[in-house]
Amino acid sequence: MSQVLVASNRGPVSFSLSEDGGLVMRRGGGGLVSGLAGVVGAAPDPGPPRFPGPGRGDPGVLWVCASLGDADRAAARRAPEGRLDLDGHDIGGAAVRMLDVPADTFHRAYNGVANSTLWFVHHLLFDTPRVPHFDARARRDWQSYEAYNAAFADALARDAAPGAKVAIQDYHLSLAPRMLRDRRPDLRIVHFSHTPWAPPDYYRLLPDDIGAQVLHGVLGADHAGFLTGRWAAAFLDCCERFLPGARVDRAAGTVTRAGHATRVGVHGLGVDGDALRRRAAEQDVVERARALRDQVGDRQLIVRIDRTELSKNIVRGLAAYRELLVNHPEWHGRVVHLAFAYPSRYDLSEYREYTAAVQRTAKQITDEFGTPDWDPLVLQVNDDYPRSLAAYRVADVLLVNPIRDGMNLVAKEGPVLSERGCALVLSREAGAAAELSGDALMVNPFDVSQTAETLHRALLMPRERRAERCARLAAAATALPPRRWFAGQLAALD
Amino acid sequence: MSQVLVASNRGPVSFSLSEDGGLVMRRGGGGLVSGLAGVVGAAPDPGPPRFPGPGRGDPGVLWVCASLGDADRAAARRAPEGRLDLDGHDIGGAAVRMLDVPADTFHRAYNGVANSTLWFVHHLLFDTPRVPHFDARARRDWQSYEAYNAAFADALARDAAPGAKVAIQDYHLSLAPRMLRDRRPDLRIVHFSHTPWAPPDYYRLLPDDIGAQVLHGVLGADHAGFLTGRWAAAFLDCCERFLPGARVDRAAGTVTRAGHATRVGVHGLGVDGDALRRRAAEQDVVERARALRDQVGDRQLIVRIDRTELSKNIVRGLAAYRELLVNHPEWHGRVVHLAFAYPSRYDLSEYREYTAAVQRTAKQITDEFGTPDWDPLVLQVNDDYPRSLAAYRVADVLLVNPIRDGMNLVAKEGPVLSERGCALVLSREAGAAAELSGDALMVNPFDVSQTAETLHRALLMPRERRAERCARLAAAATALPPRRWFAGQLAALD
Repeated sequence: MSQVLVASNRGPVSFSLSEDGGLVMRRGGGGLVSGLAGVVGAAPDPGPPRFPGPGRGDPGVLWVCASLGDADRAAARRAPEGRLDLDGHDIGGAAVRMLDVPADTFHRAYNGVANSTLWFVHHLLFDTPRVPHFDARARRDWQSYEAYNAAFADALARDAAPGAKVAIQDYHLSLAPRMLRDRRPDLRIVHFSHTPWAPPDYYRLLPDDIGAQVLHGVLGADHAGFLTGRWAAAFLDCCERFLPGARVDRAAGTVTRAGHATRVGVHGLGVDGDALRRRAAEQDVVERARALRDQVGDRQLIVRIDRTELSKNIVRGLAAYRELLVNHPEWHGRVVHLAFAYPSRYDLSEYREYTAAVQRTAKQITDEFGTPDWDPLVLQVNDDYPRSLAAYRVADVLLVNPIRDGMNLVAKEGPVLSERGCALVLSREAGAAAELSGDALMVNPFDVSQTAETLHRALLMPRERRAERCARLAAAATALPPRRWFAGQLAALD
Repeated sequence: MSQVLVASNRGPVSFSLSEDGGLVMRRGGGGLVSGLAGVVGAAPDPGPPRFPGPGRGDPGVLWVCASLGDADRAAARRAPEGRLDLDGHDIGGAAVRMLDVPADTFHRAYNGVANSTLWFVHHLLFDTPRVPHFDARARRDWQSYEAYNAAFADALARDAAPGAKVAIQDYHLSLAPRMLRDRRPDLRIVHFSHTPWAPPDYYRLLPDDIGAQVLHGVLGADHAGFLTGRWAAAFLDCCERFLPGARVDRAAGTVTRAGHATRVGVHGLGVDGDALRRRAAEQDVVERARALRDQVGDRQLIVRIDRTELSKNIVRGLAAYRELLVNHPEWHGRVVHLAFAYPSRYDLSEYREYTAAVQRTAKQITDEFGTPDWDPLVLQVNDDYPRSLAAYRVADVLLVNPIRDGMNLVAKEGPVLSERGCALVLSREAGAAAELSGDALMVNPFDVSQTAETLHRALLMPRERRAERCARLAAAATALPPRRWFAGQLAALD
């Protein structure tokens, strides 16, 4: 088995400062950690996965990630060349190199380019009369993005064994595959996009050289992975339109340029049903589920769970709930909308404004319809993972209405945990739509009235039909667990 | 020759109230008036065109338009069935029926749907996390848009002679072709789009039924005209994606549905060079040109002329000028930017905010770079047509950088009137780019830095090269005069 290197902005651990100034390590979860654990033969559940590290007689796993804040940076500096595992940190046995990217370089690359530019272009989020605005400052941000990608390429080039497989993740690192290939042509590189990909007529909002550089960067990989066929096709469209000399073969799913071929593949990502169900059976979740049931009583419960992300479309979702209450007063007192909108990207002014708009809209609904006996809407903004799992368990209707979304795992986790069978109201612009549209109730996320009527239909759906559909949704949601998703990417390199 | 009917939101005349409460009629200009005059054998220049009306021994011309305000409405009500020409108004001999659309219906159709929704979708202007927001109110607006279109279809169906040709203009009237065909299958109908057309991945922001209804509406015409091949192709793409059962034949340029075929054609629109030059030689223009020359002295002059329209991209244009002054201080005191930004669509809050942003950006530049001897920027917001023509005459560089534009006639008028030969800095997203890109300096309108550098190149261009390019631009700009554009649409119906 080859050595496997993973590169991602956010690593499997992060640090914070304790009250006495010491470093406290926290292990993260997510599909990548779980996928990696499944592939490299880490110890099975329960508990956080353990990884084989280098020097245990196998080629091992090395994870390269960025320092996201000052505490991360302090931990990275203290460890020998950033190798946290060599500084007494147990990260499930994995070797982790945390890069000490200078704070201003990181800020410009992460906020200025990755989250404000590339995220926006792939999710169609620009307020075009105003942004993007590619001026001298944007150019400086872009140079930081190049430097940030180069830091990853340098670390990977230095650490990788000959012929190793390198899995580079997401839009933060779109240039790294090319940079790494230039440094180490012997490596086998996969790039995976967790976001959608912009259609050509929107992609061309980027400056020509930057747009071409991103495509060229991803094509440095031997394999470019996407979550659905729609995003893969958009990537091919962009290569064809914006890279002179690129030969796109749609039947073969390849892009060839300057003698190097990149295969484009679709690797859907679902949930690990067993692990998720086990977690949701723990005491903290059980208690919260009981509390939610007490709070809601015999009313039907519409649940949404999102980061407060511009693409998640929370304001229109709340507006749709309002329109439901206006058009169908028969639901007054008989339904509660539980909206979890967790903080996200508060460094960006657009997100602070959006969060305020969510809260304003929620307050309007409460003021307009609330009675002493009935809270029509409960908005929760403090992240509480066990409470989210509890909400999945007791939801009657799950609302997932993003403007555009690479996949959306809420739409998959909900049906898996639903106790009585929930109806899923799902945006057709989520990647998950490709797998779930047969049993979800589909909506156009910009169409508030249609969303309101679809919530109404979902509430009216007979319990048995809801349960049947939910069972099929859960089966589809667990058909592509993270280990399969990640194994598929690595296998594509053979 | 067949009878010709024209239908457009804005007609060839409009009314205002005089101080004593009487109605004052004003004749408008524009490509449609001039194109129509050329086609139907109106009296030649000089002076406003005269049209053959019905009842003079030929089938004549009838123009159907909407009342845009209270004075229009009063004039329409006073005239027999809205026929202004039968109420003592001389409109160059043309018959004009001005429809008395109720004010609230008009407002919702014009502002709510045409200008806030269809204009925005075709120009990619939505601030997607916030708008479009298709709720119950938007549905009510849509019903008004249907009623407004039906009012046109009713009037045309009643007035048209058997087999007459009907030319329906623009995005305000996208449903009218279908409505008219249903009422009068004997008529020959052309619909012409003066805007761009949205690519499918953006068009699908519209509610499904509304998106399909617009396409179906335009396909009620026998011929659907667009300003460039790019917009025609996007229309075909949308038909293919969103109209089940539509057969799109790209080679033939047809869309067939339910047995009816619509031909899609490209009809570029340029300027009537002779008429424009004659107008620009009149005394009011000559005086203003002299005043501008006195004001600017021997400095180079960068000119832009736009309505303050979100798509016109004035803020980024000003930002590019600022970046030019930052990066190239050698131009300080040696260049003046004259920006005409005329009021537009002040009924919409987005436009009021945008106008404020333009003024703020202009003030920043003046504050940052202005000296007692040098005004780097002159922003004019009061519409003055002869002054615009004067600016064309004396410009050294013309900046036309829309986000997206059906055609853009500023890019064509400027080179025609330029005295010494101006350089044209042109957005690749303007329809005019298809005809002018060989001799213009092309820019990505979102790339402020590139625009700044291109202004620099334009200022440095040797006078002779500038003049050569300008002469070729003027030739291209006048190759498709309005009469040819309009005649092409009518000929396509034979």
